[in-house]
Amino acid sequence: MAKIAVVAGDGIGTEVVAQALKVLRVILPDVETTDYDLGAARYHRTGEVLPDSVLEELRGHDAILLGAVGDPSVPPGVLERGLLLKLRFDFDQYVNLRPSRLWPGTTSPLAGVKPGEIDLVVVREGTEGLYVGAGGNLHPGTPAEVATEESLNTRHGVERVIRDAFARAAKRERRKVTLVHKTNVLTHAGGLWARTFNAVKAEFPDIETEYQHVDAAAMFLVSNPQRYDVVVTDNLFGDILTDIAAAVTGGIGLAASGSINPERAFPSMFEPVHGSAPDIAGKGIADPSAAVLSTALLLDHLGHPEAAAKVTSAVGAEVAARTPGSALSTEAIGDRLAEAVA
Amino acid sequence: MAKIAVVAGDGIGTEVVAQALKVLRVILPDVETTDYDLGAARYHRTGEVLPDSVLEELRGHDAILLGAVGDPSVPPGVLERGLLLKLRFDFDQYVNLRPSRLWPGTTSPLAGVKPGEIDLVVVREGTEGLYVGAGGNLHPGTPAEVATEESLNTRHGVERVIRDAFARAAKRERRKVTLVHKTNVLTHAGGLWARTFNAVKAEFPDIETEYQHVDAAAMFLVSNPQRYDVVVTDNLFGDILTDIAAAVTGGIGLAASGSINPERAFPSMFEPVHGSAPDIAGKGIADPSAAVLSTALLLDHLGHPEAAAKVTSAVGAEVAARTPGSALSTEAIGDRLAEAVA
Ligand SMILES: CC(C)[C@H](C(=O)O)[C@@H](O)C(=O)O
Ligand SMILES: CC(C)[C@H](C(=O)O)[C@@H](O)C(=O)O
Repeated sequence: MAKIAVVAGDGIGTEVVAQALKVLRVILPDVETTDYDLGAARYHRTGEVLPDSVLEELRGHDAILLGAVGDPSVPPGVLERGLLLKLRFDFDQYVNLRPSRLWPGTTSPLAGVKPGEIDLVVVREGTEGLYVGAGGNLHPGTPAEVATEESLNTRHGVERVIRDAFARAAKRERRKVTLVHKTNVLTHAGGLWARTFNAVKAEFPDIETEYQHVDAAAMFLVSNPQRYDVVVTDNLFGDILTDIAAAVTGGIGLAASGSINPERAFPSMFEPVHGSAPDIAGKGIADPSAAVLSTALLLDHLGHPEAAAKVTSAVGAEVAARTPGSALSTEAIGDRLAEAVA
Repeated sequence: MAKIAVVAGDGIGTEVVAQALKVLRVILPDVETTDYDLGAARYHRTGEVLPDSVLEELRGHDAILLGAVGDPSVPPGVLERGLLLKLRFDFDQYVNLRPSRLWPGTTSPLAGVKPGEIDLVVVREGTEGLYVGAGGNLHPGTPAEVATEESLNTRHGVERVIRDAFARAAKRERRKVTLVHKTNVLTHAGGLWARTFNAVKAEFPDIETEYQHVDAAAMFLVSNPQRYDVVVTDNLFGDILTDIAAAVTGGIGLAASGSINPERAFPSMFEPVHGSAPDIAGKGIADPSAAVLSTALLLDHLGHPEAAAKVTSAVGAEVAARTPGSALSTEAIGDRLAEAVA
């Protein structure tokens, strides 16, 4: 019996998570969920971001389903560093998984790119790089101020995520891994990534590989996203590239993500890429598809690949069946998906 | 009389620079040019990247016109760090200027975006951030390896480039500046950038401003590039965003850049964004337009705004007059442009 911690969060987070749970309960009837009140609302009410006791309780779960946390009223960094990144780091969620597909029934903003043609997954490193928070401000607020940010990368951290990317590629049809970095400028970290990539690649002789600088990859994601299968990259580059991948597949409405500890030594976390969207919160019009697709990633991670595939296909079919111009409510989409997987 | 150092470089660099010089000599007949042999070819022949004596000679010029340097046979970082970045840093070229326009006669890969709708300029910081090369490898080649890269940012460096961006926006029609950073994760450097932006903005009360995280900006450059006028950002973010901007305006065929020291205390450097393209080198088919547009940026920087505008319009007109499917040679395009500005 899977134990899932639910962090619905702020704004549309609560709305989309309700639908994701509806679908999850149909496909996994004995799932046990516990709600955790975290995010901007709690921060404003109590000043707390992630109390240690809550962190300990979360640790006891098989996975976390998260809606969205955040609000413009919270200073930048508070919830990001204190909640989202804290969970990624403390729970060693080193595989930040972000699939991008151009679904039948959707249109890419790219002229001439047809549904089905884009089907890639970015394996973004989740526990190192510039996200470690190592930095500071000297003489802050004066003309002499110096601000630093340090990117920390270990062979341990780089190797495990690259190996994960190869293992995922081995299970896919095209069997190709693209390493993205900036080895010509970030020679120290780039050297480590490139050497490690070459070492791991030797273990997977039948996987096609290529290397691209991050600026070139950003361009190719626009001019030729079809070329990618599995992309492995560092934390910050992955943050940027996955948003480009989302954009060329029609936006973040269908973008799912998992922050995964593949060994299941800690709970992994699954969340739509979109934010809390305060502008449309409470209106019942948010699209829950990305949250439901994130639930599919959760199911796959917990060892239910058929259930995951069923949920994913249900979303694909629902999207394909939409009538242009007539938007369904959050709840209506959730109902359709729950029915489809029943 | 302007003294220009010409670094034609490798591959198509020599071909496009020849055409750029043809145009430059028509519009600025008394220009004095000196060729410098730098790049992959010289590196292979002599082992030298940028001898001190050459650096000193370059210093005596008003500007540098560069074609492209690089070849896959050179290890990553050698020419980038030893030549391009060395010039940017030693000559304090802190404004890395990259305009992107969707020219009449070209088509964007973005469906429904029409020529004229995209007209933005990225003011990328050029002398700080992760490009400083501060980093190292501990226990290299062992399982215990740690690699670091440090982003260094000063109030001095951030303020001058932000002020330059505002000054440029003040001369444009839309008068809008977008700051792009990642303040929610890179809180130290992001804090410095955001505080400095707010301070400078107070000096330009009639300029519209906005802030975006780099991942959101990467997405908006695809979904709504029309929204941007002047974008100011750090060195690495600028590297990535300008390639997305190039992609949505039809690729790097028309992407020009200037690495500028606005005070003219040191020579500024102007170059097409494209590389040496060994695959098409020597065939006479490279499009020299980006090199010619870079020459227009050079003219503007040296105080010839009318000449710059004339060259820019000539390129625009030539591109608009192209017959789809019948590509002109490098030389033929150069001839047309030289004729047009005559
Ligand atoms: C909210 C922020 C910390 C986060 C990130 O930068 O990783 C978000 O952009 C994401 O991609 O999940
Ligand atoms: C070649 C490389 C050093 C350079 C950069 O990263 O700045 C290039 O990508 C550019 O954008 O001019």
